[in-house]
Amino acid sequence: MTEGADGEAARRGGASGRRTARANAPLIQKRYLTREIPLYELLDPAGVELIHDQSMTILEEIGIDFRDEAALGLWRRAGAEVTGERVRIPRQLLLEKLALCPCEFTQHARNPERNVVIGGRNTVFAPVYGSPFVRDFDNRRRYGTLDDLRNFVKLAYMTPCLHHSGGVICEPVDVAVPKRHLDIVYTHMRYSDKPFMGMVTAPSRAEDSVRLAEILFGPAFVAKNAVLLSVTNCNSPLVWDATMLGALTVYARANQAVLVTPFIMAGAMAPAATAGSVAQLNAEVTAGIAYTQLVRPGAPMVYGNFVTSVSMQSGAPMMGTPEPAMMIYMTAQLARKYGLPLRTGGMLTGSKIADAQAAYESMATMIPTLMAGANFVLHSAGWLEAGLTAGYGKFVMDADQVAMMQTFAAGPDLSAEGLAMEAIREVGPGGHYLGCAHTRRNFQSAFHRPEVADNNSFEQWEADGASDANARAVEIAKRMLARYDEFAPALDPAIDEALQDFIARRKRELPDAVT
Amino acid sequence: MTEGADGEAARRGGASGRRTARANAPLIQKRYLTREIPLYELLDPAGVELIHDQSMTILEEIGIDFRDEAALGLWRRAGAEVTGERVRIPRQLLLEKLALCPCEFTQHARNPERNVVIGGRNTVFAPVYGSPFVRDFDNRRRYGTLDDLRNFVKLAYMTPCLHHSGGVICEPVDVAVPKRHLDIVYTHMRYSDKPFMGMVTAPSRAEDSVRLAEILFGPAFVAKNAVLLSVTNCNSPLVWDATMLGALTVYARANQAVLVTPFIMAGAMAPAATAGSVAQLNAEVTAGIAYTQLVRPGAPMVYGNFVTSVSMQSGAPMMGTPEPAMMIYMTAQLARKYGLPLRTGGMLTGSKIADAQAAYESMATMIPTLMAGANFVLHSAGWLEAGLTAGYGKFVMDADQVAMMQTFAAGPDLSAEGLAMEAIREVGPGGHYLGCAHTRRNFQSAFHRPEVADNNSFEQWEADGASDANARAVEIAKRMLARYDEFAPALDPAIDEALQDFIARRKRELPDAVT
Repeated sequence: MTEGADGEAARRGGASGRRTARANAPLIQKRYLTREIPLYELLDPAGVELIHDQSMTILEEIGIDFRDEAALGLWRRAGAEVTGERVRIPRQLLLEKLALCPCEFTQHARNPERNVVIGGRNTVFAPVYGSPFVRDFDNRRRYGTLDDLRNFVKLAYMTPCLHHSGGVICEPVDVAVPKRHLDIVYTHMRYSDKPFMGMVTAPSRAEDSVRLAEILFGPAFVAKNAVLLSVTNCNSPLVWDATMLGALTVYARANQAVLVTPFIMAGAMAPAATAGSVAQLNAEVTAGIAYTQLVRPGAPMVYGNFVTSVSMQSGAPMMGTPEPAMMIYMTAQLARKYGLPLRTGGMLTGSKIADAQAAYESMATMIPTLMAGANFVLHSAGWLEAGLTAGYGKFVMDADQVAMMQTFAAGPDLSAEGLAMEAIREVGPGGHYLGCAHTRRNFQSAFHRPEVADNNSFEQWEADGASDANARAVEIAKRMLARYDEFAPALDPAIDEALQDFIARRKRELPDAVT
Repeated sequence: MTEGADGEAARRGGASGRRTARANAPLIQKRYLTREIPLYELLDPAGVELIHDQSMTILEEIGIDFRDEAALGLWRRAGAEVTGERVRIPRQLLLEKLALCPCEFTQHARNPERNVVIGGRNTVFAPVYGSPFVRDFDNRRRYGTLDDLRNFVKLAYMTPCLHHSGGVICEPVDVAVPKRHLDIVYTHMRYSDKPFMGMVTAPSRAEDSVRLAEILFGPAFVAKNAVLLSVTNCNSPLVWDATMLGALTVYARANQAVLVTPFIMAGAMAPAATAGSVAQLNAEVTAGIAYTQLVRPGAPMVYGNFVTSVSMQSGAPMMGTPEPAMMIYMTAQLARKYGLPLRTGGMLTGSKIADAQAAYESMATMIPTLMAGANFVLHSAGWLEAGLTAGYGKFVMDADQVAMMQTFAAGPDLSAEGLAMEAIREVGPGGHYLGCAHTRRNFQSAFHRPEVADNNSFEQWEADGASDANARAVEIAKRMLARYDEFAPALDPAIDEALQDFIARRKRELPDAVT
């Protein structure tokens, strides 16, 4: 059971030997997760229909606001009832439009081996998104920088079970807001070969994202394939505002994918009720996706949601509580009813630090995310403080759990080797399995071994410095970054130059401050 | 939305106001969890049959050792093939005996309102069991004492979602081993009115547990009703040893319930394979339960298991990894096939402290425990360091999560109030729900609010001392213990005296050291 380089190293030097083995390990990327285990269905079919029906009634009778003239025009022409900014959408019209949206699609990466299929039995994990702060290597909280973003992109690249590079992992606040989107998109293009996200904070920034993608992939390729996957939020309750509609429209027109996502704090932006909140968000997301199909039939869109509840005593958002978990399961069933890929969940927490609260809450969100059948998971790694902070330690710890979820989703091996009857016969009552032939064949792969966990004896753990999990994870992050150059994906220098030329020109054109 | 005492206090004083409100809150115990949501079935029916069939083949062809002459005699008379200590059990005989075991039963408490029903859609949560060490109020690791055990029994009593007082929550190492069982059982009887466990470390200690129960409940009541629920471990692979068989026999004969539990470290005491480990443990537990039905047909028994995998590199047990989670789901399906109540899972971790590792691993075990449909969960609160340590902070944090699981298991409210259509109409696009009539009616109960989580702003959290979750949980534990006397359950002084007399006599009879 100690054959192999890893076993040898472990035998020679315990924890330090294992570190040595890891320090020389190759980087073997993982394909996106494809679920071999059943889904969990919280609602029975009648429950799904009940909520669907309420969402349709909301859109037919209450309506939803689209704060954009062009959007209102499209709805009017499609046959919806438009009064001011209010759009009332008959359910038949809505369902016809949803049916135009593909049930799964490929997001292309510059390395085709990193392409991801969004939909079906697949799950794609992407890092945290949008944090202005970071918890750095000294466990200090400070504003994020472009250096931090670069580090996180490199870490996501170095993490096999993160199949996607994400987007604004942290805000590079050292770059002027009007120019920031250019550096963010470039960082993903340059330092990773995994798929990534476009920017949405203004329609012009979405346009810039598409232009950069055209330089990287070629305009003809971009016209025919999804190479960007972006996220736009509904302004709940029941408002699609001009900024988000602007970005959504740019991407739909360019045939690029969007996570169409109501961001729900139930009790404030949705009712103080679990089912009612789901009915509202289902109306919001289906109206948003139907709109994209008016812009461009067949544009690849994802049924998105981000759900928390608010403490009705303090007004603070709560994560990892039971009601958001129920909402995750319920929205998944609705997305499947419409044949749409699903984005939901993540490793969410309200904790300011990567302590037990952070981990309990993250798992109470992420396990439902997996079991519900989410196809794309934003915030899979690094999230702290209700999303305000991206933590290096949390990033590594979350990714360690995500890797285990990928193993879990493969399900048990029921082959003769998995059933191991021969080993049970060989060992018999009162024996042990440590040296038997079956164990020798399977010891490398039989059981998932986490990276961060310390399962040593108390005495060994004390001798190793009595560290907590976050401290160990931060050290792992440092070691990963130190090895990045070994594995850095090459970028064609001509393309790199063209990207940099475009960015330099746009930076000259753009102001340094938002006016 | 700020009506009610709790809301008032919160409005007046933020965190300190909430503490005040809690300090005056009544203690409202919760009935055991009754699941209103579906189970998760990892295996398809063919998979369940495959593993069942292998277990039956193990018992028929390999056999299992019963290291007790009387037990071997019972098997011989029942028609099994007995060679030395080896018993080979035909599947028909085994299944006939399993069918005698009740599929659900009531464990009685001295307060009938605290009775628990073990089986069916119910889940009963009990504290950690068997830890020699505690993490104390100063976060130091030291040996447990009788004072600690008393504290934990009081904490379990003060925790509404812990429906069961448990057993050896920590080892009172300040009491001599041969006498310890008496103090442990008495502590539960005296300081709680919830159901509790009997001792198993020697048949005579099991007998003493039954005698104490007869004093508390009356011999006639005990003869007819389960008032003790104990745990006996199989010595895997495939050995029932004399000590455990002795205790199992005492309890079966007394018609008292036992968690018949193989304790599996897959890769060492079971094959380095998930499905094979389950096939072996299924053989072990079904043989153990079938044996109890030879002793006394109809004795209430629970299909138990405790599963971890070992790191095939270091030999350390691993918890919260994917394979034990799969095993939890698989054993649940097997228990249901035989119509037996299930014990599995818990808040397990290998971490020495209540850090993020502890919480990630605990949730990666406990969520499957709930979703699999476990009927009795030992180690629901307090477990650290592979069970070697019971932590006060971990106890409170785990219990907070268990309370949320109970809310989750009630499922979403799909009534008109839960769907909140009226509120959505009232608020409409662009509004907010904070003051609407539906919110005012529902703000107290709409969303579960955890006890330990800090969801305040970063600035408020810093002003409050920048504590981690474990530190806050330890403070909550202290406050709970300070309030215990307000709620202490009265014990009839005559019964108390009789218990103490019995214990004094037995302590005089028993030696101070194990010989």
